[in-house]
This record gives sequence, structure tokens and C-alpha cells, in this order.
Amino acid sequence: MTLVADRLAQRGLTMPAPPAALAAYAPAVLRGGWIYTAGQLPLRDGALVATGRLGEGVDVETGAAAAEVAALNALAAMAGVVSDLDQVQLVKVVGFVASTSDFTDQPSVINGASLLFADVMGEVGTHARSAVGVASLPLNAPVEIEVVARLGDEGAVGG
Amino acid sequence: MTLVADRLAQRGLTMPAPPAALAAYAPAVLRGGWIYTAGQLPLRDGALVATGRLGEGVDVETGAAAAEVAALNALAAMAGVVSDLDQVQLVKVVGFVASTSDFTDQPSVINGASLLFADVMGEVGTHARSAVGVASLPLNAPVEIEVVARLGDEGAVGG
Amino acid sequence: MTLVADRLAQRGLTMPAPPAALAAYAPAVLRGGWIYTAGQLPLRDGALVATGRLGEGVDVETGAAAAEVAALNALAAMAGVVSDLDQVQLVKVVGFVASTSDFTDQPSVINGASLLFADVMGEVGTHARSAVGVASLPLNAPVEIEVVARLGDEGAVGG
Repeated sequence: MTLVADRLAQRGLTMPAPPAALAAYAPAVLRGGWIYTAGQLPLRDGALVATGRLGEGVDVETGAAAAEVAALNALAAMAGVVSDLDQVQLVKVVGFVASTSDFTDQPSVINGASLLFADVMGEVGTHARSAVGVASLPLNAPVEIEVVARLGDEGAVGG
Repeated sequence: MTLVADRLAQRGLTMPAPPAALAAYAPAVLRGGWIYTAGQLPLRDGALVATGRLGEGVDVETGAAAAEVAALNALAAMAGVVSDLDQVQLVKVVGFVASTSDFTDQPSVINGASLLFADVMGEVGTHARSAVGVASLPLNAPVEIEVVARLGDEGAVGG
Repeated sequence: MTLVADRLAQRGLTMPAPPAALAAYAPAVLRGGWIYTAGQLPLRDGALVATGRLGEGVDVETGAAAAEVAALNALAAMAGVVSDLDQVQLVKVVGFVASTSDFTDQPSVINGASLLFADVMGEVGTHARSAVGVASLPLNAPVEIEVVARLGDEGAVGG
């Protein structure tokens, strides 16, 4: 069992199967030592754990829980293209939050993803991040998470 | 004639001139073996092939056709910074779809881009992808496509 | 004093302290010779220089000035993870502009960032760029800027 899998288990979480692509693309691609995931939705067992937009019907707590599920799917997508997830170092996370025009707390929503990464990956889970409020997302998902990561064990500087 | 150009010709498509930047930036940049394109709009001969948002006035078929045109411009942008487009391997595509708040089929729109890449690039066209619905895009374009790609011939894993 | 710092001074600008993260992430991460910044807001001395959306209340000039401030914070974020900012070469800038559905001049807004980079970095400031209109941004900021850059002195091709 990998360290990441250990830490997921301690949280009562299981690594899902690599997410299916919704269309003509791959869930993750590894080239030249870098991993890019597709945008991950908060799907669990094939169904969204929440739908709708922040600012109307979806509250921050629900959005953050959905972001955690999307982050788990990003880990699963990366696990599908590497032999050892413990060799993966996060670099960048972009979190798209389906938002009304007056909802402005995207950071608290995407923290659901960032905190999962920090918790299960430790120091190599350090990442830069953008959180933005978008008009709508596929399948009426409240959040979508994409990740850039690096395969290898060299040092990093995260300010 | 390159393979990519061959396959474009088979679809009745011609590689356009590298797109002009709308502002103070480059259509594509190559550094350290990686290519990043600017966000590409569905411009053909200097005019948008469609305008407006999905969910009001622009249907999925029109949006997907526009995404194909934007993808063609992304190929042209990459062709402007490499000597041989056949050495380019796609890694990531982000598709921004101008959407009303209740339009949630961004994947079908961006498939217009993904399918063109798959068709003309073959296996090296494999990419991770994000599709999101945004409030509006430059010039009132319905879609904007950006690409990260790698120059080289090493292996890739696309799950 | 670095060249970048020199040129900032000529514009009457001072490099701010590296921006604080709003949440559980780093302002910038350097791995494998690449730098990714977090999404940067137009914060100066801890307060936004403007709030609201383009198309209602924030005009293009105000938006472009805010984009310049966000770009300055991106420089500061990069300065926090490298020993010499003059070794940094820009690659990609993504500019998110909080927009009403009928505001379509995101390029002019994000030019505020692009022109600052060009002015203070010179040729190594060349970048590909995407500008998109989003529903809303953290803290009700009008713009958010994220940057991908490369550390090193090898050549680049910017078309």
C-alpha cells in the first residue's frame, strides 16, 4: 500500500477507479515527466455528489466537499498513468467553481481540494492554485478541478 | 507535406496562417521543449465563424464546429514556432465555452476540437482536457481553446 | 538591483512582498525548472485596488490598471521562489476577467498585465496568453492573473 493510499484510508477514503473521460480525451497524460489531468468533476460511483451553482442552492460546505471528491478523482487519474503515486509532486491546481455573479468565496470551496492534497500527499502536495467563478460546468457540476504535477523526486521551492 | 497537413487535406481543411495576437502577446511560445498556445478563437480569414453564447442562440453543433476552427488555429499557432508539426505531441487542451448559467454540455462543444486533434494527429494527439462554461469571451466568440504540447518523440502514457 | 527591479523603479513601481495565499496553497511553486504562480489578485497593501465586474461599474481602464497590479504580484510571487528574477522567462499568462455576459473586451483588460511584463522583462517577457470572461472572482476582484514561467537562459521561439 502506498503512503498516499495509507493516508486516504486513514480518512476513510478509497482510491476510486480512474475516472472515465466524458468525451474524446484522456483522464490524464504523462509526457516528459509531467502529468496533466483532465478537469475532474465531483463524480462518485458515476454520479455527481452535488449539482448547481454556488450562490444559489449550493453552500460553501457542500461545494468544498464536492471539491474534495473531484480532487480524489484527480489522484485516481494520476494513478492511472504512473506506477507509483508516491513519486508524484503537485505543482498547480486550478479550481473552477460554478458561481452566481455575486458569489466571491471560491477559495473556501477549492480548499476542499487543497486540504485533501495536503493531507494525503504531505509536503509534495504543495501547489500553486487558481480559483475562479465560472458560469456553468459540465453536467451541472458545482466544481471542476485540474492538476499539473511532476513525476520525480527532485527538490521544489514553494514560497 | 507533413502527415498532419496530409490529414487536414483529407478533411478538406487547409492550415491557416499563424493567428495574429489580439494584443500584447505571442500566438504560441516554445521554451524548454514545451509549447504553450495563446487562447485561440474560431477566427477564419479574420472573422469569427460564430458569435454568442451556448444556451442562447448558439447550438451545440455550431459550437462544436467553432471549436474545430479554434483548434485549427491552435495547430497553426504551434506550426509557427516549430519546424515540423509532426514532432508535436499534445498534452493538455482547455476549452472555454461562453455559456448561459443553465447550459451544461461544454464537453460536446469542445469535442469539436478534440476530435480534430485526434483525427489529424493520431496517437500523439492524445490529450487531457478541461471544458468549462464562462460568462463571455473576447469579440463575443462562443469558444476559446488553449493548448499545452511537447516537442519531441519520447513515449507518453495517456490513461 | 536586478534589471527587472530597475525597470519597475523607472515606472515608479516597487516590488511588493510575495503575496500571501488566501487559502491552503503556495503563491508560487518551482519544480524542475518551471514556475507556476497561484492566481494573483489586484491586491496592494492587502486591499483590492478595484472591485466588481467589467460591463457593470468597472471600466476597461480601471480593469487594465488592476491587471497591472495583479501582474506585479505575480512577479513578486515568482521572486519568492527564485534567487534571481532576471533568470525567469515568461511562457504563459492566463487572465480571468470578471465580466457581464455582454462584455467582450477581455484582451484590453489583460493588456495591463502583458504590457507590464513586456516593459519590465523585455524579450524574456514574451508570453502566450488567454483572456476569458468569468462570472465572478475571489473577494469580488475584477481580474485574476496566473503565470507559467521557466527558469533558465536557453532560447525561446515566440511567434
